[in-house]
Amino acid sequence: MNIKENIKTLVIKKRLKLDCGKTINNFPLAYETYGSLNKNKDNAILVFHALTGDQFVTGINPVTKKDGWWSYAVGPNKSIDTNKYFVICANVIGGCMGSFGPSHKNPDTNKIYGTDFPVITINDMVNAQVNLLDHFDIKKLFSIVGGSMGGMQVLQFISNFPDKASTVVPIACTSSHSAQNIAFNELGRQAIASDHNWSDGKYLSNNTLPDKGLSVARMAAHITYLSKKGLQEKFGRKLQERDALKFGFDADFQIESYLRYQGSVFVDRFDANSYLYITRAMDYFDLVKQFDGNLSNAFKKTKAKFFVISFTSDWLYPTQENKDIVIALNAIGADVGFVEIKSDKGHDSFLLDVPDFLKTLKNFLDKSYSER
Amino acid sequence: MNIKENIKTLVIKKRLKLDCGKTINNFPLAYETYGSLNKNKDNAILVFHALTGDQFVTGINPVTKKDGWWSYAVGPNKSIDTNKYFVICANVIGGCMGSFGPSHKNPDTNKIYGTDFPVITINDMVNAQVNLLDHFDIKKLFSIVGGSMGGMQVLQFISNFPDKASTVVPIACTSSHSAQNIAFNELGRQAIASDHNWSDGKYLSNNTLPDKGLSVARMAAHITYLSKKGLQEKFGRKLQERDALKFGFDADFQIESYLRYQGSVFVDRFDANSYLYITRAMDYFDLVKQFDGNLSNAFKKTKAKFFVISFTSDWLYPTQENKDIVIALNAIGADVGFVEIKSDKGHDSFLLDVPDFLKTLKNFLDKSYSER
Repeated sequence: MNIKENIKTLVIKKRLKLDCGKTINNFPLAYETYGSLNKNKDNAILVFHALTGDQFVTGINPVTKKDGWWSYAVGPNKSIDTNKYFVICANVIGGCMGSFGPSHKNPDTNKIYGTDFPVITINDMVNAQVNLLDHFDIKKLFSIVGGSMGGMQVLQFISNFPDKASTVVPIACTSSHSAQNIAFNELGRQAIASDHNWSDGKYLSNNTLPDKGLSVARMAAHITYLSKKGLQEKFGRKLQERDALKFGFDADFQIESYLRYQGSVFVDRFDANSYLYITRAMDYFDLVKQFDGNLSNAFKKTKAKFFVISFTSDWLYPTQENKDIVIALNAIGADVGFVEIKSDKGHDSFLLDVPDFLKTLKNFLDKSYSER
Repeated sequence: MNIKENIKTLVIKKRLKLDCGKTINNFPLAYETYGSLNKNKDNAILVFHALTGDQFVTGINPVTKKDGWWSYAVGPNKSIDTNKYFVICANVIGGCMGSFGPSHKNPDTNKIYGTDFPVITINDMVNAQVNLLDHFDIKKLFSIVGGSMGGMQVLQFISNFPDKASTVVPIACTSSHSAQNIAFNELGRQAIASDHNWSDGKYLSNNTLPDKGLSVARMAAHITYLSKKGLQEKFGRKLQERDALKFGFDADFQIESYLRYQGSVFVDRFDANSYLYITRAMDYFDLVKQFDGNLSNAFKKTKAKFFVISFTSDWLYPTQENKDIVIALNAIGADVGFVEIKSDKGHDSFLLDVPDFLKTLKNFLDKSYSER
């Protein structure tokens, strides 16, 4: 796909020292905006995307021609109301929708980086994205909002830049990737690395694609995004366009067909090496350790108002891990609200049409905006 | 590995009509026994193995040279006391430890079956294994016991042969594979099928092995065998033989190293096509549907005494699915006991050193045996 013509890019001309020790410079950060920045420049919301998201939050994604990944939540009169707010979202570095990543060429060698790209972290991602504020001449964001890995970026951003946001909304996330989280990500990475076409990450130079491995990685992740109960209610043991079992290895069950489809459409829009890099960043995320075991210290310099949201059936980042953030904030008397939304849709609830969630998010933002 | 010399095999000379419609005949069933059959031939326990198990329940497995898969539970003075009971276990058909399976040659073509092997079901498995009773001249087993897929075989066996067991112990299992169960199995199958070396199942004829795909399948399954809490307590974010993150894709975390190891040792002992066939049999298992939606009817012809065991942290076959079996038994006034064992070790609890479980199983069997 030719993505360049549809992508706005800011070239970051500052040097950015990465956590791995390497320094990057003159690197592209692809972004998109929705709504208008007001005169006072105090209505901006920086949205952070999750593992497989990108900057095309809402409306039609010009590259995939499908709805943006957060179309339920972002748009005119929606939870994040683009009639009211100026929404900015950047593709994370390490990603594959225009921001500096492993499918880019190394300017020193003129070869595609592949796995020679530096390993990046959630900290590196937000340190790249903070440059968007200068670009738009925004002193302070009205809010920073994100779910899943987006929520991790929210937490890291306010920790790094305590004065740069008035409100902070981490959704369905964690302050530290658990062993089970790492296990599922490692499974995905091994699926990609097992693909004959992956070629130690040099597939783009070889004109091949590790589609099969990436598809398996996506299937694995997809299972973790849904709840057992939600899967049972949606698919159960329903058969796929057949009246009886076929006694073979084709997709007899709808759930098999669904997973295969999820895998197959994913490879059209995502880069396998980016999948490795971004999952690695998630696994490395440990805000608790960054603050020597005391998560409260991550937030003690900010006066921002927090609102933490979790979902009952999210087993990837369960309510308790979200509550741990609330506990750390309460321990220092921070301004923090918390709600656990009832939903059978699992971790994916934050991306879906879950009215209680969408209303709750809208209420928090609009109320905070009118009270500012 | 040359497994033949260590394997006892019964050649089944009856015709067995499989659920897929095909008929097999003169097929090998590999089995092992422990302890001695008494004079009355009423002390036999048929143990059924799980997905990746085999007939070598306890002691040293002569093929892998490691402990049998249920060494904690089976042996002299153990839960299934081989001083007292005569334990029989057969490798399931479709398996790879000597019983008729996809790595065998098709006698009609003299070629290795691969995916030309007929798709088998849990029902087919137990219909093959019931022949062991005639072989040992056993009219009625004292007990049938199994966990996970072994538990499914237990349920199917007593449904098919209501007079052939006095006691029935399904452990950590289900009467019908859920959508999430199918999803994880399909993930494993797709990982295998994605391996370049799998070659549509013809790898043995090609002298290749789809080790990478099988290893990924094992990693996926292994995550489901452990609980989130158990993983966190055992591994957390501990690093693997290093003081700090290496900013690369090697196994930084112990959990990554552990999963890679589990994958790598598995491929030495298991056949990829057998993995496809056995997971398919599990996914097809639906005892509720076999009895037109009324599970009670599966058990109404038997007078056996049931004892159902589940584990608190088993999210693959959670307590509720085990309780559904108890409810179906209670609905027809069957003799049924039930216990949920507290354990953080997840689904694997039944294979591990979980004293409450091991004592409970022993008590039930020994008490039932003395009261018989």
